[in-house]
Amino acid sequence: MGELRIRSALVTGANRGIGLGFVQHLLALPNPPEVVFAACRDPKGQRAQELQKLASKHRNLVIVPLEVTDPASIKAAAASVGEHLKGSGLNLLINNAGIAKINSLDTETQKDMSEVYTTNTAAPLLLSQAFLPLLKKAAQERPGSGLSCSKAAIVNISSIAGSIKEMYLWEAAQCASYRCSKAALNMLTRCQSLGYREHGIFCVTLHPGWVQTDMGTAGGHTPPLTVDASIGGMMKVLSSLSEKDTGSFLDWEGNVVPW
Amino acid sequence: MGELRIRSALVTGANRGIGLGFVQHLLALPNPPEVVFAACRDPKGQRAQELQKLASKHRNLVIVPLEVTDPASIKAAAASVGEHLKGSGLNLLINNAGIAKINSLDTETQKDMSEVYTTNTAAPLLLSQAFLPLLKKAAQERPGSGLSCSKAAIVNISSIAGSIKEMYLWEAAQCASYRCSKAALNMLTRCQSLGYREHGIFCVTLHPGWVQTDMGTAGGHTPPLTVDASIGGMMKVLSSLSEKDTGSFLDWEGNVVPW
Repeated sequence: MGELRIRSALVTGANRGIGLGFVQHLLALPNPPEVVFAACRDPKGQRAQELQKLASKHRNLVIVPLEVTDPASIKAAAASVGEHLKGSGLNLLINNAGIAKINSLDTETQKDMSEVYTTNTAAPLLLSQAFLPLLKKAAQERPGSGLSCSKAAIVNISSIAGSIKEMYLWEAAQCASYRCSKAALNMLTRCQSLGYREHGIFCVTLHPGWVQTDMGTAGGHTPPLTVDASIGGMMKVLSSLSEKDTGSFLDWEGNVVPW
Repeated sequence: MGELRIRSALVTGANRGIGLGFVQHLLALPNPPEVVFAACRDPKGQRAQELQKLASKHRNLVIVPLEVTDPASIKAAAASVGEHLKGSGLNLLINNAGIAKINSLDTETQKDMSEVYTTNTAAPLLLSQAFLPLLKKAAQERPGSGLSCSKAAIVNISSIAGSIKEMYLWEAAQCASYRCSKAALNMLTRCQSLGYREHGIFCVTLHPGWVQTDMGTAGGHTPPLTVDASIGGMMKVLSSLSEKDTGSFLDWEGNVVPW
């Protein structure tokens, strides 16, 4: 299995929920990264207070303003991260920022379909494009080694709700816009795994479990998993993955989720 | 197997390619529908001439102006079809209108992702919502019979390019925006099959094969299938489907395509 050994990582939607959990777990690694970039929409805002507190305690935590639906903001974030890295690469890009609209099939709208897709599917595509030069650089820093999350990787945070076969919890939450966006994100991950393999970049799409976050508890549900258990599981999974796993869809325990 | 016996059908993107092929085959059925609605963006335009010619020969062919990316246009089309049907239902909605952008992973943009999704995924959702009352009515006209395309059905024209497992022809055409939209359309079909089952509406997503249409030949390729062979196959498949097949992803020969 081994353990994740990276010099740098970036997490989107890092101010709360699963994103904040990834930042905390990365900082707590036995060999923590030299720098963890925590990207969020409004770093100065009320909803980023916990992240600000964390940054005051960790000199290797850098907060990056990022609006994932704005291509210009994505480019600015990539430029700022590149400057900070002073010529070295980015090992790990965790595309975690995501939204959901609690709709039934009858109440979905073009606007909701579009907004959810822009954040959950198009943004991970644009972010990966923008950070590709830094990911490539990280891969070049470890020539010869196989694909892995310790070398250079894109991790897309998906959901079993995006499994076309499973149709998980349909009765509880139809959320077609969300399900469609996550099925599409899984497809994007497959595209990225094929397109970026030659650059030495590993790609995976993860189902974090049904987690006690703002999204997980929307609609009055009580999810079974704590953020800590989910992230702990995913960190273990990420550390264990090798070349053969690129392009796969796995849950927080490492089980393959059907498309 | 039997044969399709319907009183009414609507086809989107009906002015050329697969859409026009469906209209022709529906009109040529041994028991043709009382009315076939051929919906297209610009019925008076240069690109709808063949459809106009067909309409001059078939009194049961009604051309309906429809811009599938405009919710108001969708509502207007549904209202006009409803008036024309004078109280009876719509048996078959074929969501065929679709677009593709010939991009590599590097050249995809937010705009292309959004445009392709709006046409290929959001539009079939909105169209199904708008025509739902007419589809329900058709289902109620055949109480007791199981789900089928002869009763009431939504047929979404997808593509094997949307199969996350297959990643068909990746080397020839990356087209991530198109692949993502079709994976999402497959998910939408599953959502619709679960949501509309209680209303007696059958739902299926079809891969028409790689067909000699404008889209199929884009990029200088020569697809193996004629429009006629593809539609002939799909019509046979549609006529053979029953309740157990709702929510499935099939090709023009009736083979199950993996998600």
